[in-house]
Amino acid sequence: MPTLVLIRHGQSAWNLENRFTGWWDVDVTEKGAEEARAAGRLMKDKGLDFDQCFTSVQTRAIKTLNLALEEMGRLWLPVEKDWRLNERHYGGLTGLDKAETAAKHGDAQVKIWRRSFDVPPPPLEAGSAFDLSGDRRYAGIAVPATESLKDTIARVLPYWESRIAPDLKAGKRVLISAHGNSLRALVKHLSGIPDDEITELEIPTGQPIVYDLADDLTAIDRYYLSER
Amino acid sequence: MPTLVLIRHGQSAWNLENRFTGWWDVDVTEKGAEEARAAGRLMKDKGLDFDQCFTSVQTRAIKTLNLALEEMGRLWLPVEKDWRLNERHYGGLTGLDKAETAAKHGDAQVKIWRRSFDVPPPPLEAGSAFDLSGDRRYAGIAVPATESLKDTIARVLPYWESRIAPDLKAGKRVLISAHGNSLRALVKHLSGIPDDEITELEIPTGQPIVYDLADDLTAIDRYYLSER
Repeated sequence: MPTLVLIRHGQSAWNLENRFTGWWDVDVTEKGAEEARAAGRLMKDKGLDFDQCFTSVQTRAIKTLNLALEEMGRLWLPVEKDWRLNERHYGGLTGLDKAETAAKHGDAQVKIWRRSFDVPPPPLEAGSAFDLSGDRRYAGIAVPATESLKDTIARVLPYWESRIAPDLKAGKRVLISAHGNSLRALVKHLSGIPDDEITELEIPTGQPIVYDLADDLTAIDRYYLSER
Repeated sequence: MPTLVLIRHGQSAWNLENRFTGWWDVDVTEKGAEEARAAGRLMKDKGLDFDQCFTSVQTRAIKTLNLALEEMGRLWLPVEKDWRLNERHYGGLTGLDKAETAAKHGDAQVKIWRRSFDVPPPPLEAGSAFDLSGDRRYAGIAVPATESLKDTIARVLPYWESRIAPDLKAGKRVLISAHGNSLRALVKHLSGIPDDEITELEIPTGQPIVYDLADDLTAIDRYYLSER
């Protein structure tokens, strides 16, 4: 049976400060690093093992993966890093405190930006301190100015189909370390969750989510490893 | 000009204890981790940057790379891990204290095992506590029972030719984090060092070694980054 485990990065500095992060490359906190190590220990204790890992090009997801793999004695596993597993780009909200944004734009508007399926936040202004279009890791990529969840799904799923699904179908056991919204994209796809429900699905940090998959990669079961 | 930087892993627990290590997967010490971070800071301060990284499948080299890349803000760089960059396999000496080995076999014999070009140590006995032939990371690989430096070179160079040299020729800047003897193999090849001299070349831990290369990858200059 193909094995797939998803893990959202441990707590980041801006999770803690309640700021919109998106593509900004914020590190994990010490608590986040410990969440990652605990996830690795849990996977090892439960007898999970992997053949191939995938992660984004964002430090908090890569470090979460590295710390978990180290606990498992599996730092030697191959890891592919790709921007298409990045967090949703939060556009002009990047760097803003969530409470301040609500005070300025109103709770209803912020809820639309955070929870609607296809309404993106206002675009990040060119030349903003949070503009990543000159970052070398995105050379050759059209860095988005903002993304809805729908936009995020539109770049995650082609990556899933082209790079991850073939490994699973070949019998490899796969671990993906990524972000709240890139993982929502995968869970929506695998579990067939409707547009209006997926935005309410919370993916906790540092909690391995296990998928038992049929050979055609349809989901048989999905559960938190900590609950089995 | 193609850029190549070599770095030997930071101090390992068995470097500190003066034991033969080889393929045994010993971690870096806290001093070794700090050496790795310092190497990353030095490379960043000197303006070095990379497009592709290579390392062995041994924890001490992978962690050294990860810690250095983190200091450089470059955890997102692609990393290829391959057993052919592993340390020389120390055969039946694996795990032994170097002083005890000298007391038992004599300084002259130990010097031959450590410093001859083509005399391997006695083979590791099958079923030894240090036998790695059942380790999953080496599935499909004929794990050697022992290696001379010549044997090590014989698996490092084909990897260099097939995986690393093409990236350099394509203009990629390459960082290799590896081990004393797999790096000796590369330095011997690149700098044309004779068989009887290469075994005396000491490669210090955590010190980035820079190669300026011609387009055909012949060496123009080799130096410690800390000395420029």
